[in-house]
Amino acid sequence: MKVVGAPLYRCVSDRIRTLVESGTYKTGDRLPSIRELSRQMRVSVNTVKNAYDILEAERVVEPRPQSGYYVSRCLPNVPVDPTIDLETLVPTEATTGAIAAQIHLDIGRSGFVALGAAIPPPEALPSVALARHLAREVQAHPHDSVSYRVPPGELKLREQIAKHLVECGCLVSPDEILITLGCQEAVMMALLSLCAPGDTVAIESPAYFSFIQQLERLKLNAIEIPTTATEGISIEALEYALEHERINACLLTANFSNPIGSLMPDRNKRRIVELLHRHGVPLIEDDVYGDLYFGAERPRAIKGYDERGEVLLCSSFSKTLCPGYRIGWIVPGKYRKQVEQTKMTLSIATSTPAQMAVASFLASGSHVRAFRAARRLYAGNLEAVADAVGRHFPDGTCVTRPKGGMVLWVELPPPFDSVTLYEQARRRGISIAPGPIFSLTGKFRNALRLNAAHWSPQIEDSIRTLGELAATQY
Amino acid sequence: MKVVGAPLYRCVSDRIRTLVESGTYKTGDRLPSIRELSRQMRVSVNTVKNAYDILEAERVVEPRPQSGYYVSRCLPNVPVDPTIDLETLVPTEATTGAIAAQIHLDIGRSGFVALGAAIPPPEALPSVALARHLAREVQAHPHDSVSYRVPPGELKLREQIAKHLVECGCLVSPDEILITLGCQEAVMMALLSLCAPGDTVAIESPAYFSFIQQLERLKLNAIEIPTTATEGISIEALEYALEHERINACLLTANFSNPIGSLMPDRNKRRIVELLHRHGVPLIEDDVYGDLYFGAERPRAIKGYDERGEVLLCSSFSKTLCPGYRIGWIVPGKYRKQVEQTKMTLSIATSTPAQMAVASFLASGSHVRAFRAARRLYAGNLEAVADAVGRHFPDGTCVTRPKGGMVLWVELPPPFDSVTLYEQARRRGISIAPGPIFSLTGKFRNALRLNAAHWSPQIEDSIRTLGELAATQY
Repeated sequence: MKVVGAPLYRCVSDRIRTLVESGTYKTGDRLPSIRELSRQMRVSVNTVKNAYDILEAERVVEPRPQSGYYVSRCLPNVPVDPTIDLETLVPTEATTGAIAAQIHLDIGRSGFVALGAAIPPPEALPSVALARHLAREVQAHPHDSVSYRVPPGELKLREQIAKHLVECGCLVSPDEILITLGCQEAVMMALLSLCAPGDTVAIESPAYFSFIQQLERLKLNAIEIPTTATEGISIEALEYALEHERINACLLTANFSNPIGSLMPDRNKRRIVELLHRHGVPLIEDDVYGDLYFGAERPRAIKGYDERGEVLLCSSFSKTLCPGYRIGWIVPGKYRKQVEQTKMTLSIATSTPAQMAVASFLASGSHVRAFRAARRLYAGNLEAVADAVGRHFPDGTCVTRPKGGMVLWVELPPPFDSVTLYEQARRRGISIAPGPIFSLTGKFRNALRLNAAHWSPQIEDSIRTLGELAATQY
Repeated sequence: MKVVGAPLYRCVSDRIRTLVESGTYKTGDRLPSIRELSRQMRVSVNTVKNAYDILEAERVVEPRPQSGYYVSRCLPNVPVDPTIDLETLVPTEATTGAIAAQIHLDIGRSGFVALGAAIPPPEALPSVALARHLAREVQAHPHDSVSYRVPPGELKLREQIAKHLVECGCLVSPDEILITLGCQEAVMMALLSLCAPGDTVAIESPAYFSFIQQLERLKLNAIEIPTTATEGISIEALEYALEHERINACLLTANFSNPIGSLMPDRNKRRIVELLHRHGVPLIEDDVYGDLYFGAERPRAIKGYDERGEVLLCSSFSKTLCPGYRIGWIVPGKYRKQVEQTKMTLSIATSTPAQMAVASFLASGSHVRAFRAARRLYAGNLEAVADAVGRHFPDGTCVTRPKGGMVLWVELPPPFDSVTLYEQARRRGISIAPGPIFSLTGKFRNALRLNAAHWSPQIEDSIRTLGELAATQY
């Protein structure tokens, strides 16, 4: 069943979608303008604007400058929003197989086409400039470079990260930031600090498979909240779960959620902060893809709406600058003491030379250009990969068209089994992330995630191979 | 009560000790030769040699080249072996305060005299050479240096570590080694892989406070096995515990145990492997101090006696080369799969530039000289700090005289309270590690651990201050 009480703009977007699906408006047709529709449907201009935003994200319509909205020419469509069955919102013990680990291990296999893990292509990163900063820093301060940088970590780096966070609406002092080993350790620190074994964490569905692995390792339960490619996690479903289950923490990715690519609207970010506060539940926010926006503006982090220190913001430079350096951070709000102690038990400190290098690189201002280049590259590559999926995958395949990040979520019509495809593809030297690893309850058997940050003739070939393998299942 | 069935050489050493304590042999007196005693007591030459080894470790006697053993001139004595009450060998929930975390945090405080944490002085480390290797490697391979080195980690580094492990009696292939973020993450990975919440781990008593913190974070129980400054963990007590309690793992430091400095005899290492195998209990071995031996030979790791892959060897270069780089490793034996997956959930990978630099440094062979220099320095500094404790601490103070490592364990006569001293000292800018943080059951209130790797007039002043503060408690 659909969630009750959907907002007005959802009704408007549903109406327009029906007109397209029924063939009233055909591919390439111009749709009524915002002003016209607002008058016709007796709703505000803003409501229609929101409705068109949804349809654009779903690739049902496309805007043309100075001209209005048209029925989209793009072939593959976004996966349909999940039907939300509130009865199924119960905690599940976190247990997944070895595929998730294998996908990360396959990063290291030479000759493998790594469409599985969400890693940036090294040639897109400012590796030469970073190496120069690293070499200069450690040679200028050799004693310093071999010494521990105990929590909270290198001050110069925290100062730069504090400046960087202003862009996503977070005004925090360097003292509120702890340096971590990538976003992965940041989330692990948050989970270990907030939850005891047997506790329940609300996560998105689909959710990043490494988060599911972390919950499993810590013997935590998860409750999967339906998440759409357009708006992200369903606030209604989250609210229902909070009212009916004992939930100890919520973990989500508002900006370009992994794998589904959704960008949560700002109004929802605000609502989530209030909702969780009302239930006394802390939020672990993963914002690792937030810097990879394709639009005009850096989307705001949920942390930007948090005035009580109840959101633990986790992020890193692993998608934009230097995955191998392992530099991430957490802004733990009022949980700082616990989180700091947890870092000590996990790894004491983060590698000092890497901290010095990134601090120096950021201070030089070079990251602004590097980030911009990464955004442009990923936007183009995501489009290229999505189009290739459209060309090579079986009829009826849908693919997301996210407004940021580096992954695509592909759904095939039943009875497709992505785990079979994963195994077949791996034998051909291609790594993908099959749908079920993004769930604890065996969902998404017919879906898969593709790392779409890379583009080359070899990638096109791999996608053709994937499409051919998929076709054998019908 | 004392454990029953003490070995023969213990009886011999007890007899000699009684003769010294009764004044039969006075300070500076020459003691009977090994050959004489062997004849008189009708025991083997080896037994007498073992007895003298114990008395030497206890600083009751001292050897003089070509001349035999003399009653030691050194003032402070080793803490008396604990009386072992088998009835108290029950699991305790791991809960300790914030002092342990604060000690690590204080490493980063400028102007602090850090006698608390066991960190090497940066000027004793080959930081300039390491910086050179690091700079060269990242500039020669910039793309590589920003990319992930997923588990098991950089092959060149694992090859070097495999060579290095031959010295401690471990013949393992590079494929059996996983690179970690220092020994801390290695132990955390082992605990997370082997134990579920509520499980019980057998640890030394006193045990390294960070291990206790890790158990606490993972909601594990600990059972404290009495450990002496001479022989390390009591095998008899461990055996009793294994027979009477359900134990899921054992965690210990055979070579220069932290804090008590004991070196486990090789025969005990062999016995432990057999004993734990019989009970189906895996051993997590911390060998981080093994490279810092002051004697002629590198002591063997327990792992060197493990033929079934049931010992998980954990170590790092944090005490010898570069604490800040955070390069450690684990040899997980038959638990490799779980441990590899755990690494992925914790931090995905270890910093690539640091792995490249250490691999290159080791390949150059420079570490041999660096290790030798560190051993010589620490041997001298430990002696200087121990002597300073003898000069400045109240009468009746005992101090260990370990044959390796970098820490001293100091015991004062009751009613001394080391937590009070910790707080008073901290206000004067001196960090120490008070005894109770090395136990889960409030033991060692009258003891403290000193980092003795550093020596300078400032350290002497600090030890004088500590002695004066301690004296006010009487």
